[in-house]
Amino acid sequence: MAGARRTSRDIRSDSRLDVLHAVLSATETTRNEIARSTGLSPATVATVVGELITEGIVVETRMSVGRVGRPTAALAMNADRGRVVGVDVAETYVRAVLFDTALEQIGFAELERDEHLLEPDLIVDAIGEVLDRVVAQAGLAREQVLGVGVSLPGLVRSSSGISVFVPYWAWHAVDLDHLRDRVRLPLVIDNPLKAIATAELWLGRGRYVSNLVTVNLGTGVGAAMVLDGRITRGATNSAGEWGHSLLVLDGRLCRCGRRGCVEAYVGAPGILQTLGEIAPDHPLLDATLQRDAIGAMARAASGEDADPAVRETIARTAYYLGAALADLVAVVNPAVVTLTGWTTWTLGSHLLPAVREHLREQAPGPSILDLELEISTVRGNSVATGIATIALERFLADAGLITTHIPLAL
Amino acid sequence: MAGARRTSRDIRSDSRLDVLHAVLSATETTRNEIARSTGLSPATVATVVGELITEGIVVETRMSVGRVGRPTAALAMNADRGRVVGVDVAETYVRAVLFDTALEQIGFAELERDEHLLEPDLIVDAIGEVLDRVVAQAGLAREQVLGVGVSLPGLVRSSSGISVFVPYWAWHAVDLDHLRDRVRLPLVIDNPLKAIATAELWLGRGRYVSNLVTVNLGTGVGAAMVLDGRITRGATNSAGEWGHSLLVLDGRLCRCGRRGCVEAYVGAPGILQTLGEIAPDHPLLDATLQRDAIGAMARAASGEDADPAVRETIARTAYYLGAALADLVAVVNPAVVTLTGWTTWTLGSHLLPAVREHLREQAPGPSILDLELEISTVRGNSVATGIATIALERFLADAGLITTHIPLAL
Repeated sequence: MAGARRTSRDIRSDSRLDVLHAVLSATETTRNEIARSTGLSPATVATVVGELITEGIVVETRMSVGRVGRPTAALAMNADRGRVVGVDVAETYVRAVLFDTALEQIGFAELERDEHLLEPDLIVDAIGEVLDRVVAQAGLAREQVLGVGVSLPGLVRSSSGISVFVPYWAWHAVDLDHLRDRVRLPLVIDNPLKAIATAELWLGRGRYVSNLVTVNLGTGVGAAMVLDGRITRGATNSAGEWGHSLLVLDGRLCRCGRRGCVEAYVGAPGILQTLGEIAPDHPLLDATLQRDAIGAMARAASGEDADPAVRETIARTAYYLGAALADLVAVVNPAVVTLTGWTTWTLGSHLLPAVREHLREQAPGPSILDLELEISTVRGNSVATGIATIALERFLADAGLITTHIPLAL
Repeated sequence: MAGARRTSRDIRSDSRLDVLHAVLSATETTRNEIARSTGLSPATVATVVGELITEGIVVETRMSVGRVGRPTAALAMNADRGRVVGVDVAETYVRAVLFDTALEQIGFAELERDEHLLEPDLIVDAIGEVLDRVVAQAGLAREQVLGVGVSLPGLVRSSSGISVFVPYWAWHAVDLDHLRDRVRLPLVIDNPLKAIATAELWLGRGRYVSNLVTVNLGTGVGAAMVLDGRITRGATNSAGEWGHSLLVLDGRLCRCGRRGCVEAYVGAPGILQTLGEIAPDHPLLDATLQRDAIGAMARAASGEDADPAVRETIARTAYYLGAALADLVAVVNPAVVTLTGWTTWTLGSHLLPAVREHLREQAPGPSILDLELEISTVRGNSVATGIATIALERFLADAGLITTHIPLAL
């Protein structure tokens, strides 16, 4: 049990992982800097760096000679050790992002999906297609891909095994064997909140803070949680379903079938519903795709000719989001809350100041004594980055280079 | 940082603590049973039991001779190793409970407090008085008390140090040095939610389940959380303030100053407010003390002449509680939720069936796949038991018998 529950951060005791995190998060570093930032002894760092160089994971990029002492080698991840792919299966798109082994993005392929067409088999086909496409675009042979991570919404583990549980996707019957056959590469799967938490742990604020929540704002919304230095999975890998916690008792009908969920107010369709309540005939409501409408809202929110209905929608959304974040902060008491996801990239800067204010008014005093609310420092698609990070972690573990457990890997 | 954050369960790796938990939770056990229940080797168990016997923590109570093999010694905690006291500072009382070192309750003293009189100095005096009283009643010399634990609501640790943060108690100025001077015995302090979590870990369902929430229902309400086998403290020791998470946006005014908090609906005063909404002239509303009113409600809820307004109040409270628990379950995804606290002991059996049903309807499907909702198996006052357990843990750690860290010990 304890073994199966271990997550990325558990193996911080593994000094190789500490060193890898330090190298990954710096463009270039040195053995001395690693010793300082990790707290490991210089001798341990020297040993570990030596091992990682031997294995081709880390490289010495150049030597610099100071005024005194021996020349110092600059260290970096060996970006050319191989490639990993992260696939983000979202409701409006399936995107494959290709990374080098320094976790730099080097390509992507995307299928836009109509959010009304959600057949399981079509989704497995879409995953296969974007994967093939991103590999072909980069001129790679398949065997150069060390691992593929696929983020699947609603991926749970219960007493009856691993399954995908998204009732409103009619996805109970998704065939994970079918997915494995289609991918034909080392595969890890997890849900997007756990992918985001991994990205924050390896590359974001999670490297420095033990209690952190990253809130993902898109069509759906959810909270990736790192508590006491560990990714919080919960009993069935479903922790973080803040999107389906309650904002308004007996409030708006949520697509999950219950009433008053946070998602029904701050998910992209919820934001558009708020606009519809304020201005029932607003032209933005005619957009076919949510992402177009939210993008247009962002453009209409600023400047002298800003759209008053859009501004009012953003103000109300900030109020809802502040109240919903206050809930989460009351329960888990993080030191830092970061925001990510496509709605954040589109509307986040418009929302942030008012959300901060509402959060401060509405969360219990002791829980916000030292609280920070920021946009996530993990740029780009943090679901794809996170699930690719899990794939890289798995490769390194399978190669015997780090000790880890990937609870939901296939 | 990692060191300071370690909690009871972290030191499960400490085989002595594993053995202690096994002995504590059984009236009587054997070396073989301990090896089976802990997974430790028989040799390790023999060594550890030997050490604990030498230190006077565990005793051999009798020998039993089976048909074959060597005689087997029955083991138990040495109840007479000393005494520990747990003090629960609640809003309507201050109670000191005296325990032996097997954590069996052997005495208590209580001061009922008027919930409207909440001066910090009076509370420190009350703590001192119930402590003196419980020690005197038992005919103990002070030095026979190995440790005292005091549970203080709102005890937080932030960048500005340890403080008590209960705005509606006007307690910002509580003087912890004054408390220490008054107690004059080895002292640990923590907040009630962390005490309850410790009790669940040592004595309740936490021994067997890695993800557990215990909800405390009294005047105030809160959630004690054990996630991934560890007590969840959060950044400022304030995790679990579910009582001040949102149930109804812009709803009832809570005494914390915000609107719509869970506590305003399922705390004892909230339950009475619901009764007042249903039957404004109900005679129970004239009771001077909440505890009397809630007790009378329990008596009026059953039988042929049950009071319809009270039954309706209980039905609505179950609906509120189910919705609020669904929120918590959505976010932290525990395997087990247990209920404790004086409202639970009074009204819990009336509430439980309907709460289970509402919880199942309102929580996201994946989070309730394997969920159980039960009354806590830690009987009696779990705050006092938990804080006394922390005091015992501290004594054992100071004596070099276990490795532990009590983050908020004075």
